[in-house]
Amino acid sequence: MTHPLLLFREFLKKASFDAFMLSVNDEYQGEYLADYAYRIKWLSGFSGSAGFMVITPEKAVLFTDGRYELQASLQLDTHLFSVEPLNFLTIKKWIERHLSPQAIIGYDGWLHTIASIKKFQQNLINYHFKCVERNPVDDIWHDQPEVPKGGLTLHPLIYAGVSLNAKKEKVISFLHQEKIDALFISQPDAIAWLLNIRGQDVPHQRVKNARGLLCASGAFYLFSNETTFSDDITTYFHDHQIYICAHTDIVKVIENLSLSSLWMDPFTSPYILYSDLTAIKLPIFLKEDPITLLKACKNMIELDAMRAAHIRDGAAITNFLGWLHTTSFNDIDEIKIDEIKAAEKLLSIRQKDPLFLEPSFSTISGFGANSAIIHYAVTPDSNRAFQKNNLYLVDSGGQYHDGTTDLTRTISIGEPSLEQKDRYTRVLKGHIGLAQLVFPKGTTGHQIDAIARLHLWQVGLDYPHGTGHGVGAGLFVHEGPQRISPGFNQITLQEGMILSNEPGYYKPHHYGIRLENLMIVEPSDFEGFLCFETISWVPFDRDLIIPDLLNLQEKKWLNMYHKRVKEKTASLIDGAYKEWFERMTAPLS
Amino acid sequence: MTHPLLLFREFLKKASFDAFMLSVNDEYQGEYLADYAYRIKWLSGFSGSAGFMVITPEKAVLFTDGRYELQASLQLDTHLFSVEPLNFLTIKKWIERHLSPQAIIGYDGWLHTIASIKKFQQNLINYHFKCVERNPVDDIWHDQPEVPKGGLTLHPLIYAGVSLNAKKEKVISFLHQEKIDALFISQPDAIAWLLNIRGQDVPHQRVKNARGLLCASGAFYLFSNETTFSDDITTYFHDHQIYICAHTDIVKVIENLSLSSLWMDPFTSPYILYSDLTAIKLPIFLKEDPITLLKACKNMIELDAMRAAHIRDGAAITNFLGWLHTTSFNDIDEIKIDEIKAAEKLLSIRQKDPLFLEPSFSTISGFGANSAIIHYAVTPDSNRAFQKNNLYLVDSGGQYHDGTTDLTRTISIGEPSLEQKDRYTRVLKGHIGLAQLVFPKGTTGHQIDAIARLHLWQVGLDYPHGTGHGVGAGLFVHEGPQRISPGFNQITLQEGMILSNEPGYYKPHHYGIRLENLMIVEPSDFEGFLCFETISWVPFDRDLIIPDLLNLQEKKWLNMYHKRVKEKTASLIDGAYKEWFERMTAPLS
Repeated sequence: MTHPLLLFREFLKKASFDAFMLSVNDEYQGEYLADYAYRIKWLSGFSGSAGFMVITPEKAVLFTDGRYELQASLQLDTHLFSVEPLNFLTIKKWIERHLSPQAIIGYDGWLHTIASIKKFQQNLINYHFKCVERNPVDDIWHDQPEVPKGGLTLHPLIYAGVSLNAKKEKVISFLHQEKIDALFISQPDAIAWLLNIRGQDVPHQRVKNARGLLCASGAFYLFSNETTFSDDITTYFHDHQIYICAHTDIVKVIENLSLSSLWMDPFTSPYILYSDLTAIKLPIFLKEDPITLLKACKNMIELDAMRAAHIRDGAAITNFLGWLHTTSFNDIDEIKIDEIKAAEKLLSIRQKDPLFLEPSFSTISGFGANSAIIHYAVTPDSNRAFQKNNLYLVDSGGQYHDGTTDLTRTISIGEPSLEQKDRYTRVLKGHIGLAQLVFPKGTTGHQIDAIARLHLWQVGLDYPHGTGHGVGAGLFVHEGPQRISPGFNQITLQEGMILSNEPGYYKPHHYGIRLENLMIVEPSDFEGFLCFETISWVPFDRDLIIPDLLNLQEKKWLNMYHKRVKEKTASLIDGAYKEWFERMTAPLS
Repeated sequence: MTHPLLLFREFLKKASFDAFMLSVNDEYQGEYLADYAYRIKWLSGFSGSAGFMVITPEKAVLFTDGRYELQASLQLDTHLFSVEPLNFLTIKKWIERHLSPQAIIGYDGWLHTIASIKKFQQNLINYHFKCVERNPVDDIWHDQPEVPKGGLTLHPLIYAGVSLNAKKEKVISFLHQEKIDALFISQPDAIAWLLNIRGQDVPHQRVKNARGLLCASGAFYLFSNETTFSDDITTYFHDHQIYICAHTDIVKVIENLSLSSLWMDPFTSPYILYSDLTAIKLPIFLKEDPITLLKACKNMIELDAMRAAHIRDGAAITNFLGWLHTTSFNDIDEIKIDEIKAAEKLLSIRQKDPLFLEPSFSTISGFGANSAIIHYAVTPDSNRAFQKNNLYLVDSGGQYHDGTTDLTRTISIGEPSLEQKDRYTRVLKGHIGLAQLVFPKGTTGHQIDAIARLHLWQVGLDYPHGTGHGVGAGLFVHEGPQRISPGFNQITLQEGMILSNEPGYYKPHHYGIRLENLMIVEPSDFEGFLCFETISWVPFDRDLIIPDLLNLQEKKWLNMYHKRVKEKTASLIDGAYKEWFERMTAPLS
C-alpha cells in the first residue's frame, strides 16, 4: 500500500502548494476526536493529542510537546518524519529554514482558529497562507469513518443547577455590555453548557459537535450536521427559541439576520468563518467567549454533584488498587496481569455504578518503562505484563451523569528502589504543597505552578508538563480557561473552578510517577484569600513514602487526607481489601 | 500663589485640549530624575517614582502602584487630586468615564514610549491623542531648575570587563542577524554600558542623559545636550568612531545617513521620534534593544567587582546597625536618634570608603509607622524620633566605582511584639526559600515569585510589590529586563543576572518589614539547572526570629549565611560592635 504521506504529496503537487499545515485537533479544536478526525494518525501513525504537522514535497515534521516526545519517537517512521518541540517559534523557524519566501502554504480553514492564522500571517509576512475548505486528507483517506450523528439528551437541572433561560440571560448581559448583536459560539462544550444538553459524538466528551449563535433578542441558532432530534429535545428547543440549522448554512443564516455586529472568540472560532463573514462586511468583535469563564466557575449544585461522583469514583479506583494489590502481589506469575487486563478490570469496577457512562479519557495504564510515557495509551503491541519490583501508573477518569473525574495514582509492585521512593515522596511533597496552599484573589496559575516542582528542582529534576488543568462538570476533562502551568495565563483562579493537581516525575525507559487529585477553588479562612478543596479520595501508596522527607505540615495534611478517604469511602470498599485499605489509610507518625 | 494645577488648566484651555496626560518619568523613561524633571511633584506634591496623571478642566487623577498608595494619600491635596491603582485598564476606564468620545488628549511625545502611545491609540479608538513637543509644565514652572550638564568620565576595563569595541561588535552582530542598518539606543544606561563611560546628570544613576545611534558600519552617533567633553573623553571618542551631535538634531542626523532601516525599542523610545522618523518614510523595526539583555548578563569581571563592593558595603551597613544597637538601645532618650540622623550616620560610614560615590537611591529610613510606607522618603516633617518597642527599616544602597549595592534590613528597637516576630520570621522564610532555590534553565521570574510569599499567604498576608528587580553593575539600581514578580515576564533568568530578593510585610500605620539581599544567577550542581548566589553580607536581627518557625533546611541556610557574613566582614567591623556582631552571627540551634 502506498504510504498515506506519499498520497498527500500527490495532492500538494496537484494543488501547487509548497507546503500544507495540519493540526491534530478537529474542526471544533477538540482534543478527543471522533474516528474520522484522526487525520494525522492516519497520515503518520502519531496518536497524541497535541501536535502540528507541516508537510512539503521533501520533508514532513511533527511538532509536539514534552508529554508526547517519547511516544512520537516510537510511533513515527523517523525516515519520513522529524519531531520538534511544539511552540510557535519552532514552527516559524522550521518554515523559514525549509521554505523559500513567497512559498504557498495551504491549511484547512476549519482546523485553525482566527488567532492562529493571524499569528502566522503577521509573523511570516513573506509567505502566502492559503485557506482550503475541504481537508485534503478526507479526499485521499478512502476508508475514512463517517462523521458521527450521536443525537442529544437533556442534562437535568439536578446536575446543571441553573436553567437554560437563566444562562442565556447571563450571556446576553455580556452582549449588552459590549453593545454587540450576537455571540457566535464555536465550542461544543459551551453549547452543551448553555443549552443544558449532552451529546455523544466524540468519545469521552459528552457533547454534540455543533456551533451556535445567540442573539441579544434571546433567539438561538444551533448549527449541526443533525437536524432532527428526539421528541423531548424538539419540544425543549421549541420552548426555548432554539432553531436548528444545517452546519453548512452558518454564513447564510448569519447573513440573513442582518446583524450589525458579531462577537467571535478568536481562540476557538475557525478562521474560514471569520474570513467568510468579513467578506460579507459584517463587523466582527474579537474577544474570548464569555461562556468559557461562566462555565468554568461551577455553581453549588454542579459542585455537589461533582463531589458525589468523586466519592464513588474514588472508591472504584481504591477497589481496583486493592484488587491489584491482593492479586498481583501474591500471584503475579499465575494470573499474568498486564496493562490491558488492569485497565479492563478498572472499567468493569466503574461500570457497576449505575451513574457511570464511559471513561472521561483513554485510561493510561502503564507498567515499568511504559509508566514513563506521560500520555501512554496501551496497545496489544506495547502491552506489558506486570513483574516484581517496578512501578505501575494509572491515570483514569469517568464520565458520570453527575460529574467528570480524573485521578492518577502510582503504586509499587514488589519492592521499590530507594530512588523510586525518594522521587515519589518529592512528587507527593509538591502535590501537598499545592493542595494546602492559601493564595490571594487575583493569583493566576503561572504564579503557583512552581510550588509543585520545588522539591524535584532541588535535586535537579522536573516534569515536562503543566501541574493542573481545568475540569468540566459532566463535560470535557480538560477545560479552560484556568490552568496551573509555567506559561503565562491571565485568568485568575476563581471560586468554583475545578483544577487538577498532578505533579510527576519520569525517568525515561525506567519508570514514571504521577499523583493527581482534583481540587475546587474555595474561599479560605482569610478575607481576600482563596484555597483548594481536594475532592478525590484514593489512598497514596504507603510503601513509596519516605516519612523523614515529609515535614510536620505535610504529614499532618497526609494523615488528614487519609482519615477523610476512610470516612468517605470505607463503606464502599470490598471486604477482601479491607486490611490493605486500613494499612494504606493509617496515620504516619 | 496660584496652585500649579490651576496654571496648568489655563494651558489646557488655551491649547483646546480636553485633557492632558503626564507620566512621572523623564524623557529617558528614568525612574530617578534630575530636579527639572519633577513635573508631577511640582504640579501635585507627589514625589513617588511610579505614577501617571490625567488632568482635565474639572478633574485631576494620579494613578500609582501599591508601593505609593499611602504616600500619595499623604502628599496630595485630595480636594484637587483623586488616586487610582496604576494599570492600563484603570486609566482606560477613567478616560472613558470622564471624557466624551472625540475628546482631544494631549501628551508630551518625549515622556511616552512608542508602545505606550500605540496602546492608547488602539484601545481608545474614539479619542484623539495629540503629541506636543514641549512639555506644558516647562512653560508655566517659572523657577524650573536647569537641565543638568554633568560631563562624562571613562569607566575603566578593570570594572567593565569588556572593551567598547568588543561590545560594539556583539551588538552589531544582532543588526546583521536582523538585516537592519542601525540601532537607535534611547536608554542612558545602555549608552553608558556600551561606551564604557559614566555620567552624573541624574542623582544615583551614574549616567549622562543621552541617546545614541549605532550603525552596522561601527560608527556611533551620540546625541547629547552637551557637545564638548574633557580631553580624554574627546580622544577616546575619536579613537572609537564616536561622533557627538546635539540632541535636537536626532532626526536630521538620521535622515542624512540615508539608512534603509532602523531598529527602535518600542518600550523605551519616545513616541515623538518614531512619529518624526516614520514621517520621513524610514522603515522602523520595532523590537527590544538587544543591549538590555547583554547588559543584564554580567561578565566575570563585573561580577567580581560587584562581589567586592558588596562585602565593603555590607560591613558599612553592619557597622551602622552596630552603632544603632549600641547607641540607641542604651541611650535613646539622651541622644534622640531619628530617621534623618540615622540615614546621615549610614552615609557618613559609607563615605569612609574611597571607592564610594553616592547612594544608589534615596535611603529609606523609617521608624515605626513610617516603616510601613514601602518607598518612604524621610522629610523634616515626617521625621520620627526612635522610641522603644517598634521596628526600624533601612533600605539603602551605594554607588561605588566597582559596583552598585541595594540592601534592606529591619531591626527591633526595644522589645518586639510576638506578632512582629511572627511576621519577620515568615518574611525571612520567604527570603530563604528564594535564596536556596534551584530551578531549571528557562524559568522566568513570574514562576518563582510566589515562593517568597507562601508563608505569608498561609496566614492571609501578602506584600504589594514584586519580590526582586534586576540591578546594574555600576549603573541603575533598578535594571531590566529580568524581574521576580507576579506579572508575566517572558525573560528567562540567565547566568550572570543580578536580582534583589526582597519580600516584606507592611501593617499600615504600625510597622513594616523588608529583608533584601542581592543575588547572582549561577549554574547549580545539576546540569540544566540554575541557582542563586547571595552577595550581600549583613546579619539578620536575631531578636526578631522565632526559631521554631524555621525548618531544618531554613536554619541550615541561615547559619551558613551568618558564618559567611563573619568570614567576609568581621575584619571590617568596628571593635565597639564586636560583641553584638558575634551574637547576631552565632548559629541558631
